[in-house]
Amino acid sequence: MQELDFEKHNGLVPVVVVDDNQGDVLMLGFMNAEALELTQKTGYLVFFSRTRQRIWKRVGPEGDRLRIVSLATDCDRDTLLARVKVEGAGLVCHLGTRSCFTAPFPFRDSRGIERG
Amino acid sequence: MQELDFEKHNGLVPVVVVDDNQGDVLMLGFMNAEALELTQKTGYLVFFSRTRQRIWKRVGPEGDRLRIVSLATDCDRDTLLARVKVEGAGLVCHLGTRSCFTAPFPFRDSRGIERG
Repeated sequence: MQELDFEKHNGLVPVVVVDDNQGDVLMLGFMNAEALELTQKTGYLVFFSRTRQRIWKRVGPEGDRLRIVSLATDCDRDTLLARVKVEGAGLVCHLGTRSCFTAPFPFRDSRGIERG
Repeated sequence: MQELDFEKHNGLVPVVVVDDNQGDVLMLGFMNAEALELTQKTGYLVFFSRTRQRIWKRVGPEGDRLRIVSLATDCDRDTLLARVKVEGAGLVCHLGTRSCFTAPFPFRDSRGIERG
């Protein structure tokens, strides 16, 4: 197995989760070495919950699981990108939406106009 | 300005960077509060370099900058998603590719077949 750089980030690696059909970003999770091993063995994403400080298999009440289509790592090997098929109801966010990224965030654009 | 949760992650928030035209994930960076403020004020992504422990404006030798098209945060407000227009040569990765995520990473799929 290839290695990831877990040192940079207190034993965790961020994982960007992208829907393989629609191509949009669904969520960002973290894996420790154990979660990565379970992920690589099972073909489903397994995370490490920072809030609960334990392995988080992430099987929703309706059987939602994130089945891996492909995995890639980045140039310095400290991040993963996972393209997935969402099994079950397809609502990845606990708020009941497909993606967790639903809240616009404000900024001033390069011409000084307020956005978001 | 709305607030992000910097506490969860030692004063940093991960930022997923997506190309607004093609929709693919280009890189993942981190912001501290100062980098976020500079980002929100200028309309360009400003990061905090974990390796160098300082603000990283990320202007490449050919003027590459990541101009923000939209920002969104997630359900627990500890991550940002930035859709950007890459100005300059468009090569976001220091290895000379559009995206940093170019290295396939191995896993065994849900049917036990080795991938990646």
